Amino acid sequence: MIILVLNSGSSSIKYQILDMESKDNHKLLAKGLVERIGLDDGIITHSVPGADKYKVNKIIANHTRGIEAVLDLLIDSTHGVLKSLKDIDAVGHRMVHGGEIFNKSRLIDSEVIKGVEACNPLAPLHNPACLLGVRAVTEALPGVPQVGVFDTSFHQTIPDYAYMYAIPYHYYKEDKIRKYGFHGTSHRYVSAKGAKFAGLDYYNSRIITCHLGNGCSITAIKNGKSIDTTMGLTPMGGVMMGTRCGTIDPSIPIYLMQKYNVSVGDMDTMLNKKSGFLGVSGVSPDMRDVEAAAAKGDEHAILALKMFRYGIIKYIGAYAAAMEGVDLMIFTGGIGENDPVTREEVSKQFAFIGVDFDADANKNVKRGEPAIVSKKNSKVMVAVVPTDEELMIAADTMEIVSASKAG
Amino acid sequence: MIILVLNSGSSSIKYQILDMESKDNHKLLAKGLVERIGLDDGIITHSVPGADKYKVNKIIANHTRGIEAVLDLLIDSTHGVLKSLKDIDAVGHRMVHGGEIFNKSRLIDSEVIKGVEACNPLAPLHNPACLLGVRAVTEALPGVPQVGVFDTSFHQTIPDYAYMYAIPYHYYKEDKIRKYGFHGTSHRYVSAKGAKFAGLDYYNSRIITCHLGNGCSITAIKNGKSIDTTMGLTPMGGVMMGTRCGTIDPSIPIYLMQKYNVSVGDMDTMLNKKSGFLGVSGVSPDMRDVEAAAAKGDEHAILALKMFRYGIIKYIGAYAAAMEGVDLMIFTGGIGENDPVTREEVSKQFAFIGVDFDADANKNVKRGEPAIVSKKNSKVMVAVVPTDEELMIAADTMEIVSASKAG
Repeated sequence: MIILVLNSGSSSIKYQILDMESKDNHKLLAKGLVERIGLDDGIITHSVPGADKYKVNKIIANHTRGIEAVLDLLIDSTHGVLKSLKDIDAVGHRMVHGGEIFNKSRLIDSEVIKGVEACNPLAPLHNPACLLGVRAVTEALPGVPQVGVFDTSFHQTIPDYAYMYAIPYHYYKEDKIRKYGFHGTSHRYVSAKGAKFAGLDYYNSRIITCHLGNGCSITAIKNGKSIDTTMGLTPMGGVMMGTRCGTIDPSIPIYLMQKYNVSVGDMDTMLNKKSGFLGVSGVSPDMRDVEAAAAKGDEHAILALKMFRYGIIKYIGAYAAAMEGVDLMIFTGGIGENDPVTREEVSKQFAFIGVDFDADANKNVKRGEPAIVSKKNSKVMVAVVPTDEELMIAADTMEIVSASKAG
Repeated sequence: MIILVLNSGSSSIKYQILDMESKDNHKLLAKGLVERIGLDDGIITHSVPGADKYKVNKIIANHTRGIEAVLDLLIDSTHGVLKSLKDIDAVGHRMVHGGEIFNKSRLIDSEVIKGVEACNPLAPLHNPACLLGVRAVTEALPGVPQVGVFDTSFHQTIPDYAYMYAIPYHYYKEDKIRKYGFHGTSHRYVSAKGAKFAGLDYYNSRIITCHLGNGCSITAIKNGKSIDTTMGLTPMGGVMMGTRCGTIDPSIPIYLMQKYNVSVGDMDTMLNKKSGFLGVSGVSPDMRDVEAAAAKGDEHAILALKMFRYGIIKYIGAYAAAMEGVDLMIFTGGIGENDPVTREEVSKQFAFIGVDFDADANKNVKRGEPAIVSKKNSKVMVAVVPTDEELMIAADTMEIVSASKAG
């Protein structure tokens, strides 16, 4: 089954086209990125495995034009990978916010579109962009089934006492203020894959997944279900990130707004875009830059790294307590997969609950490959599992489309 | 040594007068509360152990008048406990915010007063009230040494990576935005007393103290030093409380202010005064009322209790991780001392790190007395230790005044 996976942002579209034999047997045909939609200097970067990257500079007026451009590339005589657009069997969309409406991936129909629109207030920048992608595909590939895979749906199993905030109850009832959590597709993918790789029964195990990338979140997964996660109403909460503050005393924005009379919007920008690694280190939102500065003795950079790792340690401890123990800790995302120091400093803190960390294995993790980085008899296992949200979206899409055809 | 302990709020003064032989050997002579200072209907409630409470209704124009009224009562022919005010050897003041200036209790002089004033912006309601108390004593008891005991000073040993927030660094440098922590006098008192009671070496042990009362905070104490605590810049953060939200995704106040255009002040009031047990349950800020409602099946009350206990469990887990294990968990404060269900539900979650909880001992804890509520061979001990901030203030005052006289 040939599946096109789309991740539509407000001015960009990421895409992958996969030939799916099964969840575990698939081939990436091509992938790429459309950027600067609606601006004068649009750009498409198209990659076919084994070939050089191909760049196209052209004005891309809107999402429909963007998706048309992607489809043109897919059947391009030189850079294409398909004979005809008719080869595309289904399209899977990454959806950001499914609120309390979507607890799993769904075949997109008018009811689903209404549901996503109902969640727009919770993700005012992201959800409308996802729907632009859906509409563009409906125009360009009429009749091709589309599936929505939500960043939030995996976390819909979190119990109420973990997702509720201790503010007046009507803010939940009327304004839907609660913890939703994000990165659900990644946590779901790496936890299932990690459990299998580690030889655990996914549906009878306690797993903590650390998705550490530009955005960071940690999830507690008990018997295959998310029971808590660090991101909250929005992706601002939890662990500190590239430019986001993570969870802080909520009196801080209030104190600063009172003191400086800054607007709510400016405070939002400060906490979302100027905080995290960038804010503390003053160096960069990219942890690699912060590590380089720390290696040269930059004190703020050293502090930022310590804060980041300490925050992760506290969340893992909290989730170990929530599940009365852990069987497997998983690192994923750009930092989780590629920063052995963070893995080591975090994991070693958990010798007291049975982590016997394998420092050598940790140093020798191969990029893009899963690995166990705890010793053979470690009571709590530690693994690195490269995430692949697009593959998970494609797998969900295949499953749902196959079932709908069978049904 | 006769010591008067004062806890001055914005419109109230709590007092105790103690005859201190030593830290462990002392006698409470009288205690009481002056309320509604500056209003038309002031009231003083004065208690002498073994006698009925004595209430005085009178207008109390300001803190000086309030303290004069207390002093009058202390030497009153019927209700007094001293022959003369000259019997008062020293006065200990509870000070709320010592910022980064005060890492221990201090003999009050003009320099200390300046230091407290410098911290006023961090506690604009509380610190000025404390200073009113100091000035009133200076007038009424000239020449009597006074000591300031800070709610924040015990937490000044918290390392930077635990007290810094991941927001732009200049907010720390210029605005002193950091975690300070509160209830320090209580955490210090119960941890030292609990370690002794449990037969541990305070300076070589890992203790987690849960101060659960109207305000709630949890502290990690490693080898006698606070290394982390749940309250932050202000007492709003951490565990949910009677009316305070505790730590929540900082995007929530921002989201609600944008949606409803409410003022910063109203948002502050909502999070500080209308949240916590009151906000979730809709019943009461008092956990006893919430428990009563839960017992009758009130779903919001049941939810509030679950949220409260789950939050405590997560913080204990986080701090266990921060210290790579725990030797002793201590419960104190109104809820911690008197709610066996919270103690049991929280402690039992930690069997996986070696808590062997003694449910019988837990049910039989005597009010006002310390108790061990874990089984004899429990790897991690659990204790109930009644807090006594006034005694700790008196002990500090005695020690500092004695040392200053000796020096």
